[in-house]
Amino acid sequence: MLNIAVLVSGGGTNLQALIDAQNRSEIPGGRIAVVISSKADAYALERAKKAGIPTETLIRKEYSSQEEYDAALLQILDCYQIGLIVLAGFMTIISDNVIRHYENKIINVHPSLIPSFCGEGFYGLRVHRAVLEKGVKLTGATVHFVNEVCDGGPIILQKAVEVLEGDTPEILQRRVMEQAEWKLLPKAVALFCEGKITVHNGKTKIREDSI
Amino acid sequence: MLNIAVLVSGGGTNLQALIDAQNRSEIPGGRIAVVISSKADAYALERAKKAGIPTETLIRKEYSSQEEYDAALLQILDCYQIGLIVLAGFMTIISDNVIRHYENKIINVHPSLIPSFCGEGFYGLRVHRAVLEKGVKLTGATVHFVNEVCDGGPIILQKAVEVLEGDTPEILQRRVMEQAEWKLLPKAVALFCEGKITVHNGKTKIREDSI
Repeated sequence: MLNIAVLVSGGGTNLQALIDAQNRSEIPGGRIAVVISSKADAYALERAKKAGIPTETLIRKEYSSQEEYDAALLQILDCYQIGLIVLAGFMTIISDNVIRHYENKIINVHPSLIPSFCGEGFYGLRVHRAVLEKGVKLTGATVHFVNEVCDGGPIILQKAVEVLEGDTPEILQRRVMEQAEWKLLPKAVALFCEGKITVHNGKTKIREDSI
Repeated sequence: MLNIAVLVSGGGTNLQALIDAQNRSEIPGGRIAVVISSKADAYALERAKKAGIPTETLIRKEYSSQEEYDAALLQILDCYQIGLIVLAGFMTIISDNVIRHYENKIINVHPSLIPSFCGEGFYGLRVHRAVLEKGVKLTGATVHFVNEVCDGGPIILQKAVEVLEGDTPEILQRRVMEQAEWKLLPKAVALFCEGKITVHNGKTKIREDSI
């Protein structure tokens, strides 16, 4: 049984999707061992408590250096014997130091079809604003491993979502969450926990029988 | 009835998709009036002849300047009273001069989900090689109007296609053609000919009843 840490900063809808999947026994190989929030008042913490999951709060500005912050984060991860870290709307930068400790063991969900609309500055509603500004007819979400390059790690799963007439960034964001993020993230976590994802040359291979 | 010019350079499978759609009466608002090839031995010319469509051959290097070539192209387009130009694997550059004459009346199909894997240098198998190199799980095709920016014009239709384990650039190219290009292009042409596509601020709007 793999111990999963879910890192959050806000409402925690992706965390909720994971909790729901866990409750439906759709993540047989793992369990959410701890939820770590970068904000003390994140609603995601309420969701975790309601589900009986231990929580930790880790606020960057309470640490005088990145090194001290990293040490605190690594200590928590070590304490819970974490085998998979899921970034679910986590708004604090994960340092290369932590990434190296958990190479190909940190998963992020990005609200676009990478390599479109990703990289520095593309987060939250900014992604969907750029999508509407460009006038594309398809967008979507991508679950990927985190490496040193922003949104540049090996891609695990992608799902397309239609852009519709009259969409606002908010409406589009919600559709991408509902139709893609909340489905892809639990699926990717389940695949990881069952050992069905391997990485070669920066690309993932997913064991066929699992999809 | 709108007169359509289809510009080709090679095998002409996208031209064939248009001919087939026309034969199935799926392009009620237009007809292919002429096929223009940049190569004398393009198999697309055979397809056109077999379908009883007039053909023209226009070889860039037979003209001493871009201006003379443009004049020859514009004369053919004018002669056939062309209202829509479809680039179906046309490998010669369309100058800004011609683009301005046919603003939002030139359609191109690109074998990726723009803005991914597009722009200078991304054509043919190079696109699919880049897709496989990046390791994305979804690719697709985009039909768009042609403007002065390479692959940068208003997007009309997009369709996603799965990348599968073991894909080679050739296998992926074929799947993208079959599942996306050959479906999107006739659909976009039909929509255009029925006057259902409008362009505002570099973005298209498609009349709802038509999809």
